[in-house]
Amino acid sequence: KSEYVVTCLAGDGIGPEITDATRGVLDTLTSNSDFSIKYQDALIGGAAIDAANDPFPQETYDLCVGGDSVLLACIGGYKWDSNPRDMRPETGLLKMRSSMNLFANLRPAKAIPQLMDTSTLKPEVLEGTDVMVVRELTGDVYFGQPKGIDVIDGERVGYNNMIYKESEIRRIAKVAFEVASKRKKKICSVDKANVLDVSQLWRDVVHEENKNYPDVEVSDMYVDNAAMQLIRAPTQFDVILTGNIFGDILSDEASMLVGSLGMLPSASISGDGPGVFEPCHGSAPDIAGEDKANPLAMILSAAMMLKYDLDRPAEAQLLEDAVEATLEAGWRTGDIMQEGGKPVGCKEMGQKVSEEL
Amino acid sequence: KSEYVVTCLAGDGIGPEITDATRGVLDTLTSNSDFSIKYQDALIGGAAIDAANDPFPQETYDLCVGGDSVLLACIGGYKWDSNPRDMRPETGLLKMRSSMNLFANLRPAKAIPQLMDTSTLKPEVLEGTDVMVVRELTGDVYFGQPKGIDVIDGERVGYNNMIYKESEIRRIAKVAFEVASKRKKKICSVDKANVLDVSQLWRDVVHEENKNYPDVEVSDMYVDNAAMQLIRAPTQFDVILTGNIFGDILSDEASMLVGSLGMLPSASISGDGPGVFEPCHGSAPDIAGEDKANPLAMILSAAMMLKYDLDRPAEAQLLEDAVEATLEAGWRTGDIMQEGGKPVGCKEMGQKVSEEL
Ligand SMILES: CC(C)[C@H](C(=O)O)[C@@H](O)C(=O)O
Ligand SMILES: CC(C)[C@H](C(=O)O)[C@@H](O)C(=O)O
Repeated sequence: KSEYVVTCLAGDGIGPEITDATRGVLDTLTSNSDFSIKYQDALIGGAAIDAANDPFPQETYDLCVGGDSVLLACIGGYKWDSNPRDMRPETGLLKMRSSMNLFANLRPAKAIPQLMDTSTLKPEVLEGTDVMVVRELTGDVYFGQPKGIDVIDGERVGYNNMIYKESEIRRIAKVAFEVASKRKKKICSVDKANVLDVSQLWRDVVHEENKNYPDVEVSDMYVDNAAMQLIRAPTQFDVILTGNIFGDILSDEASMLVGSLGMLPSASISGDGPGVFEPCHGSAPDIAGEDKANPLAMILSAAMMLKYDLDRPAEAQLLEDAVEATLEAGWRTGDIMQEGGKPVGCKEMGQKVSEEL
Repeated sequence: KSEYVVTCLAGDGIGPEITDATRGVLDTLTSNSDFSIKYQDALIGGAAIDAANDPFPQETYDLCVGGDSVLLACIGGYKWDSNPRDMRPETGLLKMRSSMNLFANLRPAKAIPQLMDTSTLKPEVLEGTDVMVVRELTGDVYFGQPKGIDVIDGERVGYNNMIYKESEIRRIAKVAFEVASKRKKKICSVDKANVLDVSQLWRDVVHEENKNYPDVEVSDMYVDNAAMQLIRAPTQFDVILTGNIFGDILSDEASMLVGSLGMLPSASISGDGPGVFEPCHGSAPDIAGEDKANPLAMILSAAMMLKYDLDRPAEAQLLEDAVEATLEAGWRTGDIMQEGGKPVGCKEMGQKVSEEL
């Protein structure tokens, strides 16, 4: 294929500016390559609520599944925080994940030598850290039924069902095994099987599936212990396989292994249709429009898109190398500023990456 | 009262040795005081499974509620790990919490100046950290019904209900407000209200209850962000109020703020009957019986017992001061060893604390 269609969801807050920076970098990349990218813009989150009264409009869905891949910036903001649940930006994100069947979320957390000292962890602890969190994204307590807030015996009762089907566990486990096969062949499956039935099933199915990948080594860890081990000795991990809510918590925690959430990309992939590639950070409404945001997590997300959806691993590597070279050259946005760092804004950071390409 | 009855649950693994060390220290303390402690021993966990085929026998329950307070060491071990759920040590712990109505779990995480460099976090990040995690302990997905593993449409489905009643949220919130009133008057309530109905109710009830404690400031934080903030900037927290499963994860993570799980005490308290005081660490079967365990978390748990159940705050303070003096003098078990530290075993560490008293 020589032209790909990428749906761009700029979303809210700093979304538009990091999207611009990322597209600028992709333009530079494709101008030196044998393929091009055609963009189609669509609305999601608060922007979609304001314009179309729906955090994930049908039109956006149609564009997303009609293209080859989706680049998403970030969503949310104070403005919509007290809206009813179905009119909240996050609901759009969840609708997107579920309707596009994005069941596998990959969040790499690799210590970056140039940023080691921006982390609150000691450099000697971070050294060599390279974790891939494989998080299930369309099940668990996020989507479980029944759920709601009822009045029972005269008082309110809130509930959500933490539920997994064998087939849901098996397909995310397969993804983790495939990922691990190309890495150090070590999976740590995180659950709470000493307390939860759903975790007991999780553990059983993961070990059953291990029989199909005999050269991958699986260990189990309780989620409380994992939250501790991740900062006690992060180099013990290769792939962490876990459910939706535990993965939400652990992957945010793991961001501190990289120094800043502003550096963390993610890929959400489906068995069939296009995937969605987005930074792990939020929409930072407090600095929106001020050209202060760090676009690197979104640029690295674009690299994941090149690798996973557009089958362009060489170009993905070029992009990652350019980001590294930019950091090596000392350019820093506010969130990753260090002694001796050269301050740049969002736009300029994008230009610096383009120059390195 | 001049004589208190304390039920001692030595449990499994390193349990018996840290219990001996703790009782030795309490003996020294009471020999200089106007009160005494009478101990009654009872079985829990693996030890109770082996002896009585029940991880929390009725007899243990009767002794616990008959006394003034309960000191628990730790439970669990490889030996019972593949038992069916009702014959697992953890099940005994959960039965105890639920039957004794221990709905409030307090886990202080205070950076200890002498141990600052045993943490993987940078000392300048830890400096001044003093967090109290107030975790709900008898509700949530731990105890929610329905739960189980069923076969539906030809495949296994595992589920647990994440559920909270208004009254359960209110009573743990009250505890947090009382605790915060005696501290910096700041509560960070942690939930996942952008996704979960049960969290939305949690958030609503916490803010309703805030009206009864107008001088306490409440902020809300999503659990994923809290997992990150706790290691990004721990000094921002005073009291963290949260549910059972999020509290399980965050309090283990918070242990890294203190340097070692071997230093973390906890109090589980009930509205009416006696509380249970126990270290946060596990039973460490790999070093059991080798006199290598760190008894300080259990000794500090005994201090919490003196304060919360026996109404002896002055003696609690004496004990805490003695632990600090022991660390200051350089005595270290393996888990908290530092350059220049003087190595001691479990027993000797207890004696050193006694000497400081
Ligand atoms: C915004 C929120 C619904 C979302 C989640 O919980 O999955 C976010 O935290 C994430 O991790 O992508
Ligand atoms: C052993 C286990 C059931 C327990 C829990 O999950 O509550 C433990 O992790 C704790 O935090 O006390």
